[in-house]
Amino acid sequence: MNFRSDNEAPVNTTIMQAIVAANSGFDESYGYDSYTNKLQQEMQKLFGCWCEVVPLTTGTAANSLAMALTTPAYGSLLCYESAHMMTDECGAPEFYSGGAKLIGIGGDEGKINTGSLDNYLAGVGVHGEHECLVSAISITQSTEAGTLYSLQELRQIKSIKEKYGLLLHMDGSRIANAIASLGCTVAEVTWKSGVDLLSFGATKNGAMMAEALIIFNPKIAKEIKRMRKRAGQLISKMRFVSAQLLAYLKDDLWLQLATHANQQAQLLLHALKSSHEFIYPVQANEVFLRLSPKAIRQLQKQGFEFHVWPGSHDIIRLVFSHATQSKHVVELIEALKKPL
Amino acid sequence: MNFRSDNEAPVNTTIMQAIVAANSGFDESYGYDSYTNKLQQEMQKLFGCWCEVVPLTTGTAANSLAMALTTPAYGSLLCYESAHMMTDECGAPEFYSGGAKLIGIGGDEGKINTGSLDNYLAGVGVHGEHECLVSAISITQSTEAGTLYSLQELRQIKSIKEKYGLLLHMDGSRIANAIASLGCTVAEVTWKSGVDLLSFGATKNGAMMAEALIIFNPKIAKEIKRMRKRAGQLISKMRFVSAQLLAYLKDDLWLQLATHANQQAQLLLHALKSSHEFIYPVQANEVFLRLSPKAIRQLQKQGFEFHVWPGSHDIIRLVFSHATQSKHVVELIEALKKPL
Amino acid sequence: MNFRSDNEAPVNTTIMQAIVAANSGFDESYGYDSYTNKLQQEMQKLFGCWCEVVPLTTGTAANSLAMALTTPAYGSLLCYESAHMMTDECGAPEFYSGGAKLIGIGGDEGKINTGSLDNYLAGVGVHGEHECLVSAISITQSTEAGTLYSLQELRQIKSIKEKYGLLLHMDGSRIANAIASLGCTVAEVTWKSGVDLLSFGATKNGAMMAEALIIFNPKIAKEIKRMRKRAGQLISKMRFVSAQLLAYLKDDLWLQLATHANQQAQLLLHALKSSHEFIYPVQANEVFLRLSPKAIRQLQKQGFEFHVWPGSHDIIRLVFSHATQSKHVVELIEALKKPL
Amino acid sequence: MNFRSDNEAPVNTTIMQAIVAANSGFDESYGYDSYTNKLQQEMQKLFGCWCEVVPLTTGTAANSLAMALTTPAYGSLLCYESAHMMTDECGAPEFYSGGAKLIGIGGDEGKINTGSLDNYLAGVGVHGEHECLVSAISITQSTEAGTLYSLQELRQIKSIKEKYGLLLHMDGSRIANAIASLGCTVAEVTWKSGVDLLSFGATKNGAMMAEALIIFNPKIAKEIKRMRKRAGQLISKMRFVSAQLLAYLKDDLWLQLATHANQQAQLLLHALKSSHEFIYPVQANEVFLRLSPKAIRQLQKQGFEFHVWPGSHDIIRLVFSHATQSKHVVELIEALKKPL
Repeated sequence: MNFRSDNEAPVNTTIMQAIVAANSGFDESYGYDSYTNKLQQEMQKLFGCWCEVVPLTTGTAANSLAMALTTPAYGSLLCYESAHMMTDECGAPEFYSGGAKLIGIGGDEGKINTGSLDNYLAGVGVHGEHECLVSAISITQSTEAGTLYSLQELRQIKSIKEKYGLLLHMDGSRIANAIASLGCTVAEVTWKSGVDLLSFGATKNGAMMAEALIIFNPKIAKEIKRMRKRAGQLISKMRFVSAQLLAYLKDDLWLQLATHANQQAQLLLHALKSSHEFIYPVQANEVFLRLSPKAIRQLQKQGFEFHVWPGSHDIIRLVFSHATQSKHVVELIEALKKPL
Repeated sequence: MNFRSDNEAPVNTTIMQAIVAANSGFDESYGYDSYTNKLQQEMQKLFGCWCEVVPLTTGTAANSLAMALTTPAYGSLLCYESAHMMTDECGAPEFYSGGAKLIGIGGDEGKINTGSLDNYLAGVGVHGEHECLVSAISITQSTEAGTLYSLQELRQIKSIKEKYGLLLHMDGSRIANAIASLGCTVAEVTWKSGVDLLSFGATKNGAMMAEALIIFNPKIAKEIKRMRKRAGQLISKMRFVSAQLLAYLKDDLWLQLATHANQQAQLLLHALKSSHEFIYPVQANEVFLRLSPKAIRQLQKQGFEFHVWPGSHDIIRLVFSHATQSKHVVELIEALKKPL
Repeated sequence: MNFRSDNEAPVNTTIMQAIVAANSGFDESYGYDSYTNKLQQEMQKLFGCWCEVVPLTTGTAANSLAMALTTPAYGSLLCYESAHMMTDECGAPEFYSGGAKLIGIGGDEGKINTGSLDNYLAGVGVHGEHECLVSAISITQSTEAGTLYSLQELRQIKSIKEKYGLLLHMDGSRIANAIASLGCTVAEVTWKSGVDLLSFGATKNGAMMAEALIIFNPKIAKEIKRMRKRAGQLISKMRFVSAQLLAYLKDDLWLQLATHANQQAQLLLHALKSSHEFIYPVQANEVFLRLSPKAIRQLQKQGFEFHVWPGSHDIIRLVFSHATQSKHVVELIEALKKPL
Repeated sequence: MNFRSDNEAPVNTTIMQAIVAANSGFDESYGYDSYTNKLQQEMQKLFGCWCEVVPLTTGTAANSLAMALTTPAYGSLLCYESAHMMTDECGAPEFYSGGAKLIGIGGDEGKINTGSLDNYLAGVGVHGEHECLVSAISITQSTEAGTLYSLQELRQIKSIKEKYGLLLHMDGSRIANAIASLGCTVAEVTWKSGVDLLSFGATKNGAMMAEALIIFNPKIAKEIKRMRKRAGQLISKMRFVSAQLLAYLKDDLWLQLATHANQQAQLLLHALKSSHEFIYPVQANEVFLRLSPKAIRQLQKQGFEFHVWPGSHDIIRLVFSHATQSKHVVELIEALKKPL
C-alpha cells in the first residue's frame, strides 16, 4: 500500500485512453499539432484570460524555465527556505537562469512568512551593484507541507510583489489539490492574485508525463519557445503531451481526481486527529504525522510504504493520490490506531 | 501523404500497447522502477558490454548531456559543420556544457571529412590557453543527409580520436536506420568503433517520446544522474519511457521498423535514379532530390508534404518512416514521373 | 578622515615604486614574464610548499575561480551565511561555476559554527540526485566581522572537511591582517590547516590592484590557465601585477602594513572598551561599534567617514588600513569620548 | 628587438606618471572616485555624445561583456571567422553570455565580406525556434590582419545591421591605430557608423592595464554595473585604471602613440614593398610578411622577435608599438634586405 508519492501512482484511465486516441496517423511535430493548438484555447478558457501554454514533461523544467523567464543571470528569486526549487531540483533553476540566486525566506507550515518577506525586501539595495537584483518571488500551492496559501495570504503577497516591482511565480505541481480544497477558481488563485506564471502540474494527479508552464504576462513570454528548445524540452511528438492535458481538463477530471486524493487525507485526519500529532494543517493531499520509531517500523513491516521525513526520525509523510483506494486508507487508520 | 518528418509519424502499435501495459498499479518513481532496471539489462545485452542507460524524452537532451559529459566549459567539441547539434538545437549543447564551443568541420554528403578533421587537430594548441581545449568529436549516424559512415570510415575516426586523446560521441537519432542498412551489429558501429557515448533514438522510429543516452565509458558516467536532474530531464514516471524502449528492443522491433523505412527510400531511389538527380547517396530513410520549383509546387498541390530544403529553392527532403505506406510511395513515384 | 574601507586607501609607496621599476623595456605578456616567474618562486618559499600562483586584479575573481575549481555546476559550496561570496559578489561565484549553489551556514562573530556545519553535512545525501553534490567549504580569514579563526578552530574545520571528503577554500582578502594578528605562519593557517586554495589579497593592504589565487592542491590546478583566460582575467601586461606582489612580499612588507592597520584598531579598542559596546572581538583591522544615531550624525558632521552597517541604524564599521594615521585615530577616539 | 606584440611593450611615461599622481590619499572605491567620474565626461567629449564608460583591465572582458549585453543566451553573434573573439578568448564571449553562439562569417584581409554577411542573414529564421536568435554583429577595427574597415565599408555594415534589426559591436583593441590611419573622428568610425558599443583599447597602445567598454546605446547599458561586478571585473581602486585612460586621452596622446606605431609599419612597407610579399595591405601597426623558413631562422638568430603565424611556416607577423624605436625598424629592414 503506497503512500510514498503521487509520482508513483499509475496513469488515470481516461488520460491513458486519450493518449491512445491521439495516435491516429501523422500530425505536425514540435507543438504545431492540433492537440497543442486546442490546449492553448482550453487553458485560456479555464483561466479566463490570455495565456501562453508551454507543455512540458517535468515540473523541474517548468519551474526552471519560470526562473529563467523572471530572473536575469545577475538577479535573485525569493522562495520559501525549503521549497522544492531550493532543495530538490539539484540546482536546475540556477542552471536555467545562467547562475542566478535562489534566496530562502523563512516561514511556517511550508509557507513564506509575509512579514519576513517584506522585511527582507525593505533591506535590499544597500549593497548596490554588489548584490543581485531581486527579480521575483516563487510560492508553492499547495505547499511542500501539504498546506495552502489562502486567498487573503495571496493578496498580501501580491501587494508585496507590486510594492517592490517583482514578478510572481507559482509552483503548482499540486495546484489541482489546492483548487479542489479552496473551492475557488484557478483564476482567483493565479493571475487574479498577481501570479505572472504558473507551473501547472498534472503528472502527480493522474497524467503520465504532462506539465504546463502557463505564462499570464506577455512581456516575459516572448522568447519562451527558443528557451524551451535550448533546454532540450521541446518534445517532438508533443501531441501526446497535449492530449494528456486536454483529457485532464475535460469535464473537470483534474478536480475530480484531486478531490478524491484530498478526501483520503481528510479521512485519515478525522479518524486520528484526537489521538495523533499532525505536524501541519491537513489542507491538500499530504499528511505529516509524528510516530515513534517503533511504530514506524511496525507500519513498514505491515507493508505500508511512505517516507520517513529527511532530517527526522519520528515524522512520516503520507501522500494520497487519485489512485489511492479508500479501503487502503481505512487499513492504514486501523494499523495506526492499534496499540503497539 | 506525409514525407516531411519521421517525427510526425504515429506511435507503433506494439510500443503503444507496452505503454498501456506498464500502467498497472504503483511503481517507484524517478527511474527506480522495474522497467528502467530491466532496460539497463536489455541494453547491456544488446551492446554486449557494460553501459549506463539514461532514458530521456528528447534527442536534444541526449546530445546536450553528451556534450556536457565530454566537454568542459573551457573546451570544444568538433562536429560536422551542419550537424543537428550545430544548427538545429538552438544552442542546447552550449547551454548544457556551460558555454563550451562547437566547432564545425567540413566534409561531403553530411559526413566529416577525416582529412580535414586530422588537419584541424594537428594545428590545435598553438594558441595555448587562448584557445579552448579540444575535448571531443561528435558524428551523426545515419547523418542529416541520409548517408552512413561505413565501418572503415568509423575506424579512421577512431584512430584520429585516439591519436589526439579525445572522446567520441555518436548522435544516433536515426541509429536504427543505420544498423538496418549496414547489416552489422550496433556494437560494431558504436563502442567497438571507439564511441564513448551514444544518443540512441527511438522516437523518430516508432516510439512516443523515448530516447536514451548510452554511456560506454564509465569515467564520464559518474555524475550523470545529477546532471540529468539538474537539466530538468528526470521523468518522474520513468517506467513509461523505459517501457517504450523495452518494447522497441524486443524481438528486434527497432530493426524491423527501420528496415521498412529504409526500404521505402530504396523503392523511390530505384524507380527514379535514372530520371532524377539525388543529391546524396540514399543509404537510410532520407532522400534529397532536385526538382524544379514548378514541379515542387505541383507536388504540393497534389497533397504531398515534405520540406523544401532551407537555403535552396530546388531541393526537397523526403523522409520515410516506420509508418510510411508503400502505396503512398508508389503514388509519389508516379507523381514525380509525370511530365509537368 | 576615512575609516570607510581599506579599498579607499592609496597604494603603498614601495609598491608603487616597484610598478614604476617594472616598466623597463619589453617583456613577455600573459604571465610568461620574469616577474611572474619569480613570483611563483617567492610564493613557494613563503608557503614552504608547491603551489600554483595565479595573479589577478580582483578578489571576486579569485573567490569565483576558487568556486569554479572546487565545485562542479551540479555541486554546492558551504560558507558563512553572510560571507562576502554570499552577499557582496553579485552572484559571481555562481556565474564562474556554471550555476552551482552557495549554501549559508550560521555561526557567530562572522565565523561558521562548526557544530552547525557538521550537522548540515550529516544530513546531506538523503535526497540523492535531487540535491546538489556538496563539494567544498569556504571560510574567510580574517572574517567580514574583523574576527579570526584560531588555529584550533581551523583544525576542527579541517577534520570536518576530511570527514566528508570536501575541498577547503580560504577567502584571504585580509589574510595579512590575520597572520599579523595570530603570530603564526601563513603555512599554518592555510595548507597545514587543510586549505586547498587561498584567495591571497593585497589590494586592501597597500597594493594597487593585485590579488593571487594560490592553489595548494595540484589535482584542481590543471586547467586554471584556461579558466582564467575564459573569465577575461588574463592580464596581458601581467608583470605589473606580479611586481606589486613581489614588492608586497619582500622584507615582509605585507606583514608590516597589516600590523600597522591592526594596531590602529587596537588603539581604538583600548581607549574605548570600557565606555563603548564593541559588537565583535577586535582581532584584525575592522571594528564594529554601537553608537546612537545622534552620535553617528555628530561624527559624520566632524568629517569622519565610515559605513553605518546595512540593516542597522546604530552600528558603524570602522576599517583601519596601512595608510591610516594614528593621529586620525586619536582624533576619532576623542570625538567618540566627547559627551553628545 | 621585439616585434612580437604590442602587449609586450612598456607603459608610456606620461601614463605611468598619471598613475603615480593618482596615488594621493584616500578616494572612493569601485568606480565612485573623481577620476572615473571625470573619465565619463572626457569620453563623452571625445565621442560627442552620451555614452556609458566602463573601465576594465582586459580586452577580453570588454568584448565578452559586449557579447553579454547584445546577445541573449539563446542568441548568436556574427563575427569574422578568425576574429579574436572567435579564436583567442578561450570561449569567454560564450561564457559571459551564458552559452550564446559565435558564428563566423568569411571574408578577406581580416574583414567580414558584407555580401556573405547579408546572404547569411537572408537565410536566417527558416529553422524557427530550432536556431539561435541572431542578435548582433561584431567587427574588429583595426582588424587582426592589420587592415581597416573604410568608412564606406562601415556604412554597408550599418545598413545590414539596420536591415535585420541587429546590434553592432566594435572590438577596438587597436582602435587608436585605426583612427590615426583613417584620419577621421572616432565618432565617425563608431556611433555614427551604427556601432552600439565599443571595446576601446589602451593597453596595447601604451597603457598598463586599461580598456573601456563604451556603450552608446542606453537600452543595453542599464544593468552593466551588476554584470561587471558579477564577472569579477569591478576593480576596487578603479581610479588607477581611469587615471591611465585620462592621461591617454589628454592632448591626443593616444593618437600620437598610435601614429608612431603606424609610421614604423609604413617605414618597413615602403622599404620592402618591391622586394617582399606583404600578405595584407598595411594600414595600421601590424605587418604580415612571407619569408622562407631559412630567412625566418636567420632573423631569429639575429635577435629579432616575432610570431611565425600559426598554421603557416612562411608567414611572420610583425607588430609595431608606441615603444618601437625607428632605429630597430631600420635594422630589421636591413636584415630583411640582406641576401641569405
